Amino acid sequence: MTLSNEPTRPHDQLREVQIQCGYLESNPASVLYRSGKTIVLCTASIERGVPPWMEGKGKGWVTAEYNMLPGSTSPRKRRDRDGKVDGRTTEIQRLIGRSLRAIIDLNALGERMITVDCDVLQADGGTRTASITGGFIALSLAVKQLAAMPVIGALPPVDPQAVLPKSVAAISVGVIGDDVVLDLDYLLDSAADVDMNIVMTGDGRFIEIQGTGEEATFGDEQLVRMLALGKKGIAELTAKQFAALEK
Amino acid sequence: MTLSNEPTRPHDQLREVQIQCGYLESNPASVLYRSGKTIVLCTASIERGVPPWMEGKGKGWVTAEYNMLPGSTSPRKRRDRDGKVDGRTTEIQRLIGRSLRAIIDLNALGERMITVDCDVLQADGGTRTASITGGFIALSLAVKQLAAMPVIGALPPVDPQAVLPKSVAAISVGVIGDDVVLDLDYLLDSAADVDMNIVMTGDGRFIEIQGTGEEATFGDEQLVRMLALGKKGIAELTAKQFAALEK
Amino acid sequence: MTLSNEPTRPHDQLREVQIQCGYLESNPASVLYRSGKTIVLCTASIERGVPPWMEGKGKGWVTAEYNMLPGSTSPRKRRDRDGKVDGRTTEIQRLIGRSLRAIIDLNALGERMITVDCDVLQADGGTRTASITGGFIALSLAVKQLAAMPVIGALPPVDPQAVLPKSVAAISVGVIGDDVVLDLDYLLDSAADVDMNIVMTGDGRFIEIQGTGEEATFGDEQLVRMLALGKKGIAELTAKQFAALEK
Amino acid sequence: MTLSNEPTRPHDQLREVQIQCGYLESNPASVLYRSGKTIVLCTASIERGVPPWMEGKGKGWVTAEYNMLPGSTSPRKRRDRDGKVDGRTTEIQRLIGRSLRAIIDLNALGERMITVDCDVLQADGGTRTASITGGFIALSLAVKQLAAMPVIGALPPVDPQAVLPKSVAAISVGVIGDDVVLDLDYLLDSAADVDMNIVMTGDGRFIEIQGTGEEATFGDEQLVRMLALGKKGIAELTAKQFAALEK
Amino acid sequence: MTLSNEPTRPHDQLREVQIQCGYLESNPASVLYRSGKTIVLCTASIERGVPPWMEGKGKGWVTAEYNMLPGSTSPRKRRDRDGKVDGRTTEIQRLIGRSLRAIIDLNALGERMITVDCDVLQADGGTRTASITGGFIALSLAVKQLAAMPVIGALPPVDPQAVLPKSVAAISVGVIGDDVVLDLDYLLDSAADVDMNIVMTGDGRFIEIQGTGEEATFGDEQLVRMLALGKKGIAELTAKQFAALEK
Amino acid sequence: MTLSNEPTRPHDQLREVQIQCGYLESNPASVLYRSGKTIVLCTASIERGVPPWMEGKGKGWVTAEYNMLPGSTSPRKRRDRDGKVDGRTTEIQRLIGRSLRAIIDLNALGERMITVDCDVLQADGGTRTASITGGFIALSLAVKQLAAMPVIGALPPVDPQAVLPKSVAAISVGVIGDDVVLDLDYLLDSAADVDMNIVMTGDGRFIEIQGTGEEATFGDEQLVRMLALGKKGIAELTAKQFAALEK
Repeated sequence: MTLSNEPTRPHDQLREVQIQCGYLESNPASVLYRSGKTIVLCTASIERGVPPWMEGKGKGWVTAEYNMLPGSTSPRKRRDRDGKVDGRTTEIQRLIGRSLRAIIDLNALGERMITVDCDVLQADGGTRTASITGGFIALSLAVKQLAAMPVIGALPPVDPQAVLPKSVAAISVGVIGDDVVLDLDYLLDSAADVDMNIVMTGDGRFIEIQGTGEEATFGDEQLVRMLALGKKGIAELTAKQFAALEK
Repeated sequence: MTLSNEPTRPHDQLREVQIQCGYLESNPASVLYRSGKTIVLCTASIERGVPPWMEGKGKGWVTAEYNMLPGSTSPRKRRDRDGKVDGRTTEIQRLIGRSLRAIIDLNALGERMITVDCDVLQADGGTRTASITGGFIALSLAVKQLAAMPVIGALPPVDPQAVLPKSVAAISVGVIGDDVVLDLDYLLDSAADVDMNIVMTGDGRFIEIQGTGEEATFGDEQLVRMLALGKKGIAELTAKQFAALEK
Repeated sequence: MTLSNEPTRPHDQLREVQIQCGYLESNPASVLYRSGKTIVLCTASIERGVPPWMEGKGKGWVTAEYNMLPGSTSPRKRRDRDGKVDGRTTEIQRLIGRSLRAIIDLNALGERMITVDCDVLQADGGTRTASITGGFIALSLAVKQLAAMPVIGALPPVDPQAVLPKSVAAISVGVIGDDVVLDLDYLLDSAADVDMNIVMTGDGRFIEIQGTGEEATFGDEQLVRMLALGKKGIAELTAKQFAALEK
Repeated sequence: MTLSNEPTRPHDQLREVQIQCGYLESNPASVLYRSGKTIVLCTASIERGVPPWMEGKGKGWVTAEYNMLPGSTSPRKRRDRDGKVDGRTTEIQRLIGRSLRAIIDLNALGERMITVDCDVLQADGGTRTASITGGFIALSLAVKQLAAMPVIGALPPVDPQAVLPKSVAAISVGVIGDDVVLDLDYLLDSAADVDMNIVMTGDGRFIEIQGTGEEATFGDEQLVRMLALGKKGIAELTAKQFAALEK
Repeated sequence: MTLSNEPTRPHDQLREVQIQCGYLESNPASVLYRSGKTIVLCTASIERGVPPWMEGKGKGWVTAEYNMLPGSTSPRKRRDRDGKVDGRTTEIQRLIGRSLRAIIDLNALGERMITVDCDVLQADGGTRTASITGGFIALSLAVKQLAAMPVIGALPPVDPQAVLPKSVAAISVGVIGDDVVLDLDYLLDSAADVDMNIVMTGDGRFIEIQGTGEEATFGDEQLVRMLALGKKGIAELTAKQFAALEK
Repeated sequence: MTLSNEPTRPHDQLREVQIQCGYLESNPASVLYRSGKTIVLCTASIERGVPPWMEGKGKGWVTAEYNMLPGSTSPRKRRDRDGKVDGRTTEIQRLIGRSLRAIIDLNALGERMITVDCDVLQADGGTRTASITGGFIALSLAVKQLAAMPVIGALPPVDPQAVLPKSVAAISVGVIGDDVVLDLDYLLDSAADVDMNIVMTGDGRFIEIQGTGEEATFGDEQLVRMLALGKKGIAELTAKQFAALEK
């Protein structure tokens, strides 16, 4: 099974990951995250205040937006400019937002809102998991930035350790024929009968499991193997995230 | 743990299910599906031809739409009339569509399109799983209807057994404190730390697993217990589906 | 003239009416209204406060929304999800709203807003008049519910007799060839040269008359006969409304 | 009762009407129609072919669009630019279209489409009836123009007498206190308890009657008086239409 | 070069201009502006207060909207009713707004907002420059009207000389073959290789220059000639504006 | 005048330009274009066929889309997701499209469509001129790519020299107090009284001039100085474009 045109990668191995923190001069909380040919620019923007339905609770909010640039795919992807964000985009950005909110302490954040934008410059499969993994780094950088700012007005100072006690990363696994494969690029994803995205904390607990049989079904044994492989991938990604943040 | 105001239901027991096939005189492929207080009207509409991107492949297509009536919740839910179907609705109808397509043989269907509409008349939790379980019944009724129609033009006759070789049902499970609970109604869902929707075939294979920690996480042991309880629920729902269809 | 496939109904007779008050357990102000094969679910939802342009006048507001479910017609009706509610829907819901506001005392209601949703489950002609007739029942149930609630804050208590001193019902009449016909179902409506909707109070005064020659015209004599037949129908519907409300 | 700031006009008298045919040099089928201070520019545009759902029937189609310019009212009216044409506009343009289609022979027109645009430059009540009355003149001018054109291709030549065998005009009447009043300007309309728009052919038959009690009701006797006064007004408008067209 | 079907006009001469101030009885700040066959109705509407982002600065705001009526062109122009104002319209109304704001003293205006609507009744080229030239007249009339009003509340009285110390007018020039031509009508515009719109103050300073090679380019010499001819036209238009305002 | 926080740059000097051709592995016609802190990703996508209104003429089409990523500015820029592309965006992408079409021979291109996407990753003024200058490079790369492709079907082979006989670049100039300044970054732009964008061919002819007094005006002498400085900048950019393309 050598569908991908990358030099053959073992089924249990991640694609090469490159993380460039502070990619944009104007926003320190920006990350260019590459996983193989997939490139996502993650930026975290901080605003004072929260959406109206959150006001007065002393809590903050984190939301995410996901977008693929038109040139990121071939053929070119049309822009979402007719007022209808497509269903796939909506699902992905809701997933990113939930994943980040699962590991942040919104009370410790105070009444601040952080928007994490994940813009895909080049898409080769795994853009949603790359967005979560890279989005966590942008979020961490934003929280560090907040902690370094002078405290103004009634908002509490920010303790990064209290705000972000855990980390989050995500990876895909799939079933292709008899194999269970880690980190599906576009070609592998097209060939997969079952596709599962796993979102976990750095300390090994599940945040989200989304497994889908694409016009196929799967049994218990395959489920167990996919989960095991996913955990291995998450552990490796977590290490890369912390290495990038410590630089 | 007696959060629900229903007479206390054991944690491993489904709500009462009522299935009324042919609810609308004008469309035999209509089902009024009740699970406790949740009421969903599922109707399947058949069209000749398929969407443009499917044309000429000799295959059919199945799609689903989901909607909550304004009076189905309290406070009243606003209609989606501003051109923005909300993210939750989009996610749910994509899930219903995928689930139904996983068990239908689109080649055996021929170039026909079936739209399954799931309109929630009353919502008390579990509307998406009720829509899948009821939607399968509407789809089965539509396929029976097709098989009974005279064949016109170039379309092949329909063999219900070939078109729908399997069945599909769905149920939710959750973690509330130390308990794992089957079939969450609104109150139970609000109390749950983890919420998982399981979509399975009648013969016990997974189509979709969506488990989410709502501002919480979960470990391996809880995952195993949720999956086991879900399987039990699916088996019971499958029996009810076939009983209703055989009447 | 036996166009309809119902057992032949005399031209001056209504279709069979069934009224099921409190159809939804979660909302007492809900009615399932059937007129022949036409089925409309009417629910009235109460909110404190009024739209911004009504604030501070001490008056309430009543509005209506009308919608046909996709499965209510054959072929399936597309949902209004592109942000364009079609002209017919807009006209009908404005008519329902005006009709209900004509018989309610908005001052006696106080600064409360009631939305009456009319969702058509099955359409066989006369959905707008069924919505008005059923909508009045839902509105009455909501006002009773309000009167039974403890009074909170500055809002005045509600006297149902003062809020709803009159009733309203509606019916269609038409001209088919030389006949004047009461209560047009879909087949009769398609055959009619002239179509008139009449909205009247229970005590016999007009609220609205909308008569349209569909690519035809009508003279004085036909107008007089249509109005007379309409009054007869309204009187019968009024009796059925009060019977249902008294149960 | 001297609400209007015009020099007092008897209750049974129309406002002054001015009709300027061929107002736009570039389109002979254009009319500037004035009724008192209400000014409507009506233009009829001809296209070959008909909407897709009309194709192949050998029939034509007439449709109308209605719009109020922002400066036509005080305070300024916002443009319909957010994709939501308001309900009132939709109702009015549907009424204009129905009224014009009631007197045109679409078979005699052949597969041509005529769009009648009614743009209100200044609004002082009665804009919908002015649009119908002026719209008929624009439509007549367009039909004359068609008849004068050389016949191209498969379309039949146009005989104006066959295409437009009748004329149409419209007027409002209302009940103010004990009076029945013809041709309501803005001030009279605001004061009216009942408002009725009557659309009739030039030979005295009804096309449309729309009578509405504005938070009021009306009885048989008022109805009879309104219809009589309306007929008188229509007869006078018909004479003015033909005078303008004969110039 | 005699492309236009008007009696031949020298290349350096404007089309005939007619200016009718106070065209609408209900709004003194209304102007019917004609330049040859191009007819634009310009109305200025005054509101107290400014948009939210301008509040509290003690300054006013002027904005413009531009629209072509469907009957203004042949073939008929579709209305902007789908929520997408086309790019050309957006550009033009931004240009009109900027041009008017360049010569008004927003501080002297006080917290008032003036909207200048430019609705094109008939289009024969040069509608954007006619809108600026006519829009200035409507704006001047509105400022005069403001000055004549009693001062209410905290707003300062208006000194027309201080609010509008300068005037603005606009004209097009173009290159057709070897000629440089003033004031392009539709036919000239279609023939032009280069099209330039010039907006200037009455005292001869540039506000805006927009020169575009339509699939062509232009050199320094042509630029110089276009600017000279444009200045000549502006001077003549300025004289006509003041003549109309002084009547 | 040292408004910018960059090391002081002489008024007649461009910001540093960096051009990275083939930035995306998946699309050779991609360029990362940097001018100082402004970063634009330009990608050109080729499709066979042209928009419907261009069909059958044997000509191609070039269009452009422009977008600022949310993280490109501070505060964060909201996405255009409500179906309303803002006026500024519309103007800019129309300008980019016109500029590129002015130097391409659409007949030589044949019935192909090229879309040039300009996505701004970081914005520090001059994004529209950077998009034109970088967009030309992406377009050139796409044309080279086309020329290297095997010719399929009826489309003519592509001769890059014939398709793109000229080049195009763009730059801004402005007036700040008494100075005329080249290449305005964000701070300079904010300080400018007059802002002019100049689009020119590589051989020194104008394609577009857009000069705007921002609540100010300008005279002949300033215009002459701005044009001279702009020409100098364009010449330097042209050299950089060719250097990048020759690598």
